[in-house]
Amino acid sequence: MSFTLEKSYDIFMIPNSNERDTSSDRNKRISNIVIESFSNGGNQMNNEYGAEKQLLEAILLRYEYMERSGNFFPQTTEAFIKNNFVFESQKCYKSKVDMDTSYNPPEPSQDHWMLNTPLPKYDKIFVLTREEGVFRILNESGKYIKELDTYFLSKAKYLKDYEKMVGIVSDGPLKSLCYRRLSYLQNKFQLYLLRNEQRELHEQKSIRHRDFYNIRKVDTHIHAASSMNQKHLLRFIKRKMKTENDTVVLEKDGKKITMGETFKSLNIEPYDLNVDILDVHAYKNAFHRLDKFNHKYNPIGQSTLRQIFINTDNYVEGKYFAEILKEVFKELEESKYQHIEPRLSIYGHKKNEWSKLAKWAIKHDVWSTNSKFLIQIPRLYDIYKEKKYISNFDQLLDNIFTPLFEVTNNPSSDPDLFRFLLQITGIDSVDDESKHEYIQFDKFTPSPKDYTDAENPSYTYYMYYLYSNIAMLNAFRRLRNLNTLSFRLHSGETGHPHHLIDSFLTAESICHGLLLRKLPVLQYLFYLTKIGISMSPLANNSLLIPYHRNPLPEFLMKGLNVSLSTDDPLQFHLTKEALMEEYSIAVQVWKLSPTDMCELALNSVRQSGFEDKIKYYWLGSNFKNEGALGNDISRTNVPDIRIAFRYETLVDELSHIFKIYKK
Amino acid sequence: MSFTLEKSYDIFMIPNSNERDTSSDRNKRISNIVIESFSNGGNQMNNEYGAEKQLLEAILLRYEYMERSGNFFPQTTEAFIKNNFVFESQKCYKSKVDMDTSYNPPEPSQDHWMLNTPLPKYDKIFVLTREEGVFRILNESGKYIKELDTYFLSKAKYLKDYEKMVGIVSDGPLKSLCYRRLSYLQNKFQLYLLRNEQRELHEQKSIRHRDFYNIRKVDTHIHAASSMNQKHLLRFIKRKMKTENDTVVLEKDGKKITMGETFKSLNIEPYDLNVDILDVHAYKNAFHRLDKFNHKYNPIGQSTLRQIFINTDNYVEGKYFAEILKEVFKELEESKYQHIEPRLSIYGHKKNEWSKLAKWAIKHDVWSTNSKFLIQIPRLYDIYKEKKYISNFDQLLDNIFTPLFEVTNNPSSDPDLFRFLLQITGIDSVDDESKHEYIQFDKFTPSPKDYTDAENPSYTYYMYYLYSNIAMLNAFRRLRNLNTLSFRLHSGETGHPHHLIDSFLTAESICHGLLLRKLPVLQYLFYLTKIGISMSPLANNSLLIPYHRNPLPEFLMKGLNVSLSTDDPLQFHLTKEALMEEYSIAVQVWKLSPTDMCELALNSVRQSGFEDKIKYYWLGSNFKNEGALGNDISRTNVPDIRIAFRYETLVDELSHIFKIYKK
Repeated sequence: MSFTLEKSYDIFMIPNSNERDTSSDRNKRISNIVIESFSNGGNQMNNEYGAEKQLLEAILLRYEYMERSGNFFPQTTEAFIKNNFVFESQKCYKSKVDMDTSYNPPEPSQDHWMLNTPLPKYDKIFVLTREEGVFRILNESGKYIKELDTYFLSKAKYLKDYEKMVGIVSDGPLKSLCYRRLSYLQNKFQLYLLRNEQRELHEQKSIRHRDFYNIRKVDTHIHAASSMNQKHLLRFIKRKMKTENDTVVLEKDGKKITMGETFKSLNIEPYDLNVDILDVHAYKNAFHRLDKFNHKYNPIGQSTLRQIFINTDNYVEGKYFAEILKEVFKELEESKYQHIEPRLSIYGHKKNEWSKLAKWAIKHDVWSTNSKFLIQIPRLYDIYKEKKYISNFDQLLDNIFTPLFEVTNNPSSDPDLFRFLLQITGIDSVDDESKHEYIQFDKFTPSPKDYTDAENPSYTYYMYYLYSNIAMLNAFRRLRNLNTLSFRLHSGETGHPHHLIDSFLTAESICHGLLLRKLPVLQYLFYLTKIGISMSPLANNSLLIPYHRNPLPEFLMKGLNVSLSTDDPLQFHLTKEALMEEYSIAVQVWKLSPTDMCELALNSVRQSGFEDKIKYYWLGSNFKNEGALGNDISRTNVPDIRIAFRYETLVDELSHIFKIYKK
Repeated sequence: MSFTLEKSYDIFMIPNSNERDTSSDRNKRISNIVIESFSNGGNQMNNEYGAEKQLLEAILLRYEYMERSGNFFPQTTEAFIKNNFVFESQKCYKSKVDMDTSYNPPEPSQDHWMLNTPLPKYDKIFVLTREEGVFRILNESGKYIKELDTYFLSKAKYLKDYEKMVGIVSDGPLKSLCYRRLSYLQNKFQLYLLRNEQRELHEQKSIRHRDFYNIRKVDTHIHAASSMNQKHLLRFIKRKMKTENDTVVLEKDGKKITMGETFKSLNIEPYDLNVDILDVHAYKNAFHRLDKFNHKYNPIGQSTLRQIFINTDNYVEGKYFAEILKEVFKELEESKYQHIEPRLSIYGHKKNEWSKLAKWAIKHDVWSTNSKFLIQIPRLYDIYKEKKYISNFDQLLDNIFTPLFEVTNNPSSDPDLFRFLLQITGIDSVDDESKHEYIQFDKFTPSPKDYTDAENPSYTYYMYYLYSNIAMLNAFRRLRNLNTLSFRLHSGETGHPHHLIDSFLTAESICHGLLLRKLPVLQYLFYLTKIGISMSPLANNSLLIPYHRNPLPEFLMKGLNVSLSTDDPLQFHLTKEALMEEYSIAVQVWKLSPTDMCELALNSVRQSGFEDKIKYYWLGSNFKNEGALGNDISRTNVPDIRIAFRYETLVDELSHIFKIYKK
């Protein structure tokens, strides 16, 4: 694997910065650098290339896991793995000719729930079975279907891989090496910036019409229940108090209670209500109090009001929640360029949750061109167990996954759910990561059916069972020619940093990832495999880490695939434009340049679950290409030199590691 | 002067924190504290009460200057000076009975420019004369009018007072003392907060309807030319390019140039334009480059476009600038609770500037219930001199002040200007403070007529001539029963910290005041005399000091009279709601509580130039009272305990200092 690096940006390289070097010189130089790095940092290395081997092992593991679940893995890294990497000169972007320059948006579907499209009829209806908590698919004769069963992941294999990753992440010399590589990446970027900042600005200015305001931005991490700001929710509740005073909104002990009676029992008149009383905003007293923070979802501290207004499953059949969400969507559609990926909850304590949620969405037509739903699954086994909703962990998994497999097997079993799932792009796993984990996951941990402990199982336990089922579900849906789900989890916000090992193996992208700053090896691996990190510095600022100490700007400099998101506008934002507010603060506090802003926005679009045909329209026809060739500045407003720099830097790093590959 | 302090808030005081102390005990205790402070900090003190004497002298000077100009001086401090201070118990606020609770806004005037009201006719028309750059007013027999002439301030007196202030501000022991008092204030506040934060929240929640969103906020420092955000200006220019392509917008060398021709010469089509090309936003490359920053006012770097779009005096008679300003006003009126005090420029290089500006405002009806104009005067003598607009400093003063005095003397001499002035609330002095001052102001500095140097005179020179003329003008306008002008200057943003001495003497309130952090004595004096400080941390962040190092939160804790303002939304803000964006960032980065936010907003209303009848409606009928008695939480949303704490703390400090007064 050899290539000539034609630099389109300006940077001093050591040595002979300004001379183009031949590829053989170059390879020699790269080897020198790497060996030098290793000999400095790796004095306890077993053999000469121990560090590369470990990094390679980790990359290959990630590749295997992404192949299994069918989630995103970067082209460039994949090419190195497949040993067919061909360097494409980043200089030729000036003569890109195959760019589709039509700016026509894809035809919006009039029937986005496909209610008028007949359900598919499948020849084969398979036999579904669950073994040790994981779905398996059998043919009529009761045998595993080979083409699907290759996607099965056993608990033993996961534990082995996890253990290997713990070893890699904790290896002292490797930590030193990765820390040094990351510092190198950061310094290289700063050097690049000092020499090319004006050129970047110039490239941006030379593009007609496009600027930060009219490039696409996706809020990659936002909870549906808190996607409106506090003033919006306040106005909505006030309006409903006035117009629907006599609507029955609750049933308690067989007694029907109206909106008016509810507020009367709280002693509140519409005029009285204000955001102070509503009390959903997180001020400084939420710092390091994720427990307290969750109460902030209850308006006026009343879970009743949360139940009435921000819930899909209640006496009014989620009418109000649908209405306010649609108001949020309307504002986004008016803004045109702002998009969101809100999370709706599936708890897993009842089996009809999916079905109800699907009916709710379709009945109220909760849909927008500017939004794509994900499903969040809270890790609350212990609470359901205590409340006797479920008696073991297997029931939770059963409630969550059985409806999905059944409807994939036989669409007519629940047509609404079938149609709803076509609009869902991913699964998120959420909860307070800082809670102590009493039960570790190892070979002695009971299997789901036998897991009847009062304590919650560990993060890793959840991840294995979620991932392995999703991988199988995706394989099944691919077979059925249906959309698949991305596994995009909350990880590394707080708690044990090793949660990030789970997400390195299983997640397409993560929310938060703050704790990557404590794990240099994993941080470097996230870089090499371009795992999306959706960061919410305002949320972090309220809960965990002061704004100016947030690692986002450092991650961005190093070239990690970070995007900006709001998490909970209800709790954290003051203006009507939560995402713009999030960008504004980041730009100001960290002094980001217009190119930085546009790069963050570009990352957010790439990380998002919007369809390829939409991304084609938003980013340009070559958007799947990872270098400057894939960048259409007239749509992204990111200068080609920035993209070229990122691409070539990644290729450089990968070359160091892959030089021993198949040696 | 003795009083009983009845605490309405909860704080440990040393000693006997929880017992109410008798007034005699208290006085003894206060004396102990003060003497102790002095004996620690003041080992070079001439006599026992040297520090108090110096502080007293400074306060009395400030009082004298504010009396002269008729600008705001706080009631409480004044009462100490007049030796008639009576402590009003802050506890009785629960039984405030004389509060006017009507929420009716004052009748909006249909004829705000009073075009249908005949001009006043005065019996006496005075003889106006200018002596050494300062206006004097004579009767027909050529004698000074005694009642006005007491307001005259001579250059010698100003220099003497300034010098005395330099001595006080630079006194080492006094610096230590004030530094310690300020630290004490900050710590006392933190102690107060730790014990009362929940009570504050409770008080806020107990108030119906009112919250941060529906309390009044004034953007106390914003330049009219940059009061729209970049996206707004972009849209406006694009619209005009499309709809007024053939409108003549310029005349160059006798040739008339249309809008279309202007943009053609720049090679720009309406569709092409974006915010990157517009290039008015200040990114990190403006840091410590106030010179560069001023160029950011020129869209696309073209002063021609600034001339066309954001200027009151051009070929289209300021039509476009009026239009876009009215769009800004409209948005504010829709927001209802957000107000601004934009600055319009008078340069002083032509005598008809005032007249033209007045005609512009009235012709285009540039007026809003949500806005009050101030006039900013740039300190650009050197540029006008170089361009030969003027030949000495006196001509600048003549151009600025003569129209004002003449129209006050005889309204019919310029009816538009007369009516325009009724709507103006103050004068601001602006420019880059960091420019080196080649010419100091001392007794040898030439008087204005003889000042023909190529260099700009010093800040102090400007301040003396502006202040002394404004003081005389205000006296004259009071005599005529007309509105007077506040002197509210840019001061202490950068450059020599001693600019703050000028503003301590002459200004009602200041913009920026960052450098107060370098002058503890002056900072303490600003506290004692409650001088308004309008701070713009986002602007500072771009130009001078990183956000998280801004002194605003420290000033707020100590109890200085600070407000939040945007300075230049065109350059610094991204969302449509610049002021809310400014608050949002402050709240997030500094973790301000809802009470802090509301206190900042309250300060902004108090500092603003809106009429008393408006403030009566906004803040409550007792708003002139400075303690909790003057606070109507149902309108301000600031808890009484916070106001009581601020008030009692100030009374405490003043008691320390005034105990030697008239001894």
